[in-house]
Parts: sequence; structure tokens; C-alpha cells
Amino acid sequence: MDSTQPSRERLTGVFAPVLTPFDGNLAPDARRLARHCKWLLSQGLRGLAVFGTTSEANSLSVDERESLLEALLGSGIPPGSLLPGTGCSALTDTVRLTRAAVRAGCASVLVLPPFYYKAVTDEGLFRSFAELIERVGDSRLRVYLYHIPPIAQVGFSLGLVERLVAAYPDTVVGMKDSSGDIANTRAMIDAFAKDGFEVFSGSERFLLETLKRGGVGCITATANVNPAAIDRLYREWRSPEAESLQSRLNAVRNAFEKRPAIPALKAVVAHYAKDPAWRAVRPPLLELGAGETAPLVDELRETGFEMPL
Amino acid sequence: MDSTQPSRERLTGVFAPVLTPFDGNLAPDARRLARHCKWLLSQGLRGLAVFGTTSEANSLSVDERESLLEALLGSGIPPGSLLPGTGCSALTDTVRLTRAAVRAGCASVLVLPPFYYKAVTDEGLFRSFAELIERVGDSRLRVYLYHIPPIAQVGFSLGLVERLVAAYPDTVVGMKDSSGDIANTRAMIDAFAKDGFEVFSGSERFLLETLKRGGVGCITATANVNPAAIDRLYREWRSPEAESLQSRLNAVRNAFEKRPAIPALKAVVAHYAKDPAWRAVRPPLLELGAGETAPLVDELRETGFEMPL
Repeated sequence: MDSTQPSRERLTGVFAPVLTPFDGNLAPDARRLARHCKWLLSQGLRGLAVFGTTSEANSLSVDERESLLEALLGSGIPPGSLLPGTGCSALTDTVRLTRAAVRAGCASVLVLPPFYYKAVTDEGLFRSFAELIERVGDSRLRVYLYHIPPIAQVGFSLGLVERLVAAYPDTVVGMKDSSGDIANTRAMIDAFAKDGFEVFSGSERFLLETLKRGGVGCITATANVNPAAIDRLYREWRSPEAESLQSRLNAVRNAFEKRPAIPALKAVVAHYAKDPAWRAVRPPLLELGAGETAPLVDELRETGFEMPL
Repeated sequence: MDSTQPSRERLTGVFAPVLTPFDGNLAPDARRLARHCKWLLSQGLRGLAVFGTTSEANSLSVDERESLLEALLGSGIPPGSLLPGTGCSALTDTVRLTRAAVRAGCASVLVLPPFYYKAVTDEGLFRSFAELIERVGDSRLRVYLYHIPPIAQVGFSLGLVERLVAAYPDTVVGMKDSSGDIANTRAMIDAFAKDGFEVFSGSERFLLETLKRGGVGCITATANVNPAAIDRLYREWRSPEAESLQSRLNAVRNAFEKRPAIPALKAVVAHYAKDPAWRAVRPPLLELGAGETAPLVDELRETGFEMPL
């Protein structure tokens, strides 16, 4: 390690890709967002992966994302608790959001690959990230690769990760694996964790196995509603109770995986917060149907779920 | 038809989704772009579908797209010749670009569906377009639906088009079908052309068949380099020579379909313009390899291709 580089704090634990509330005009609601962020931190989460897929971030303009980040910091959320998503389809947008995040004290960012063109090459993706890192040009920057092929379609191969880590060892430091394929998570951990590369699962369903294998935590949509229980498994994964904690998390997750997850998560927040405004999503997503919340809440209750808002 | 609406000029003919040149810093080069646009119009094209897939538009920020549109209009390109692409993954970006286009005199816009989330519903897509149209709120607006499932993944079903045309008959007036599936183009024409809905093929390979079936033209990448020949088939499609003109267009197109099309088109412009800067693409795309241009140019020459820049 280059001793002129600042030593790096490892990111480990559970992060929520924070839901983005909207007001009656479908504009992002910074006040409700900050309140939800503070509640999530109060439940023990390590941090807030704002502007992820669950946040409908790619349904927000760059201006909207910048304003929300400023509002969150202005509300007293510590910058070190934030892991903002900054990856857009346009390199110049990704550079702008990443630069703004680093300057605001959020050195760690979660970056989607450019996702419009399909069947792009590893060389093209390598150049995208090289341009990003060179243009931001800030030694504080820490890039976490956001691998979510079911949605972005474009993803990170082992070879691409290897090239990026070799070229930018102090900058490309981890990954969120939302492939839904534990075999891929294992392969990434086996290849890179020994050098300090931090692999997060994109689902708490794989949290125990990810930690046992050498990963560092999870960044998971369900942490918006079930943060304490997920965080407990992270803290107690070596205990005899770990398998049982994992099973209980899975039971809660099952209820969301059967449904459109983002609208279902928002409906559950709306229900427990007694705040129907939370139900709103931006098109092309649709709110959960009016009759669909009660069965979801019932199903969750049967698992022992509670949301102490 | 509501007689208070301005009567509508039909868009018909051949449009080029104009390649976007970049400078040495990979910034869009408005001067080269305007020159290329003027050349394309001089070759007889009906218009310029700037900011399409071939234009790498989703690799440009909203600010870059706005600036380029202003620069083009400032250079004397007539607004009525432009059919700008304005569809982004974020509704607010799509609204902003569409509003800017309409205010600048480009009432007709080509709009991608929001393309980040996959497996979205027709209802969600309907609401995206309804929000767009209501928010722009300008009776001059003419929306052409941009159907390109091989890249956007998200597309327009017959049912969705029917709903949009029924709800906004004076606004949702046509489609570019880049599915690559002539059966889909036929189905769209058969369902909607009788009511004046204008279906463009996304490839000149299907131009003759599209026109015979009742479509109105094509919006095709290859028109960047082969505009006059494509336009000739459009003008002479009822002549005895039409089949032979179509075959010659196909031979040219074959040379691009074998290769990464956007880098190959830029390499050909660079070659004929003797302007190597034209080769540049933004990541994640890659320039055509140095040794790959000569075989491409040779292959094109064998078809009788020329590019009288």
C-alpha cells in the first residue's frame, strides 16, 4: 500500500438503500426522507445507501439528487453514514454526482455501470470507470461497484473487477452484488476479499453465507423496514442463533419478493408511520393497490415482524 | 378532430439519428455536429433525429443535450427539420428536455420509455407518458414513441399504444419501431395507421415493406453515411426499381450490422471527411480498432457506396 495514501476505514455492516418519499406532485420530499434516514440509523444500521435502485434514483434528475443530498447533510445526517449511488447512464452525470458527493464528505459512493447500451465490452466499462476516477481526481474517493444485472443488464465480470482493482487499488475498494446469485458473490469474495476488497450482498437472504465466506455485510432494500433484525444477524453471525436469525429474516423478505418490492416497502412504511403520502412512487412504478396492503401487513405480522417507527 | 387544434403536418420520409462528434476531451463538438447536420439535409433527408441511440444521447447529460440543441438552432438548422430524442430514465429529465425542445420550435420529439426498471407494466408506462404530456402542457407537442427493446429492454405493446393514442390523439402521433421485427412494424401499422398514426421503421432494411404496408418512412443510423440512397428509395418506392434500390441499401447496411454500428459509422465519417476526430465515442462504447476501418471501407466500396462529403 502506498504510504502517502490516507489509511482507509473499512465499510462493514448493514446499509439501507433508502426509499425516496414523494410529495403530492411527485417531487422528492426531503423532510420525510431525512426523518426516515434518522430512524434507520437509530435502529443500528451502519449506513444509508441513498440513491440506489430501491430509492428510485434513476427516476430522479441529477439536480434532484444533488438537492436531496444537500438537504440530508443539512438536516444533520453525518456524511460518513452515507454511501450515495452516483452511477448514471451518462459519464458526465456520474462524474458530477460523484464529485458532489466526495466534496460533501461522502467519499464512498456506489456506482452503477453505464446502463443504456447493452452487450458492451469489459474494456468499454473499464474506460468508463477510469474516466470517472480520473475526472473526479480526488484521493478520498472510494468506489463501490454496483452489480445488479437483473435491472441494469450491464454488470461486472471477475476480469473487469480484477482490472479495476489492479489499476485503482486505493479507489475501487468494494462491490454490492445484487445479482441474486450467491455463486457470483462467493466468486467475488474468493477472488478479491483477501486483498481487502469489500463484498456486500444485495440481499439479507445471503447475509450469513456472505459473512462466513469473507464478505462484509449487505445493502438491502428490506433494511428500510426491518433494519434492527438484519443488523442483529450482522452482529451475531458467529452465535449459535445465527441460522435461526437468518430464517426469520428470510420469512420477512419472502413477503416482499412476492410483490413489487419498492411499492410494497413504501406501503409498509406508510402503514406503520400512519402517513399515506409514503405510498407514492414515480412512474413507471405503480403504487401498491389499495387492497394489497392489509394482506401484506398480515403476512408480515405472522412472521413476528414489527416496525417501531 | 378537434377543430380548435392546429392542423398537423405529417412527418414523412427519412431521418438520420445524427451521430454526436466529440472533441479530444470527449465533450460534444457542436461545430462538427452542425456541419454534419447541414450535409445530411443537403442530401435530401427530411430531418434530423438528433439525440437518438446512434447519437449516444444517453451518454450525454441533460445540460449537454440542451446546449447542443441551442447550438444547432443557432447555427441555422431549421427547427422544423429536427426530431430530438428527449426520453430519459427520469421523468423530470424527460419533461425538461421535451419542454425545451417544444419551446425552441421542435414540437415533434422522439421519446424513449423510462428504461432503468425492467418488467414494468403498461399502466406504469402509460402514466409516465401521461405525466410527460400533462407537465409539458403545450398543444404544439407531438410525441413519437421510440420502441427499441433490444437496447431499452422496455417497449411499447399494441395495447399501450392504443391507450396513449386514445387518451392523447393530437399528441401521440407516431412511432419509431427499432424492434428489428418487421412483424411488429406491420402490426403497429395495421392497428393505427388508418387513424393517421405515423410508423417509421428503425432500419432502412424494412423501408420498402414499411411504405407498402402504410408506414411513413424510416429513422435509421445508416442515414448518417448513406442518406441520398436511402432517401431515393423513399421517393421512388413505387417505381419498378424499388426492389433493386432496397437490395443496394441492404448491402451497405450489412457492412455495419457485422460491426459495432456506432463506432463503425463514426469511422466511416472520419474516413470520408478526412477528420480522425470523428472516430471518438464516449465510454462505454469503444472506437473502431485502427486496423478495422480499411476493410470496412473496402467492403462498402464493393457495394458501390460513396459518401460525397
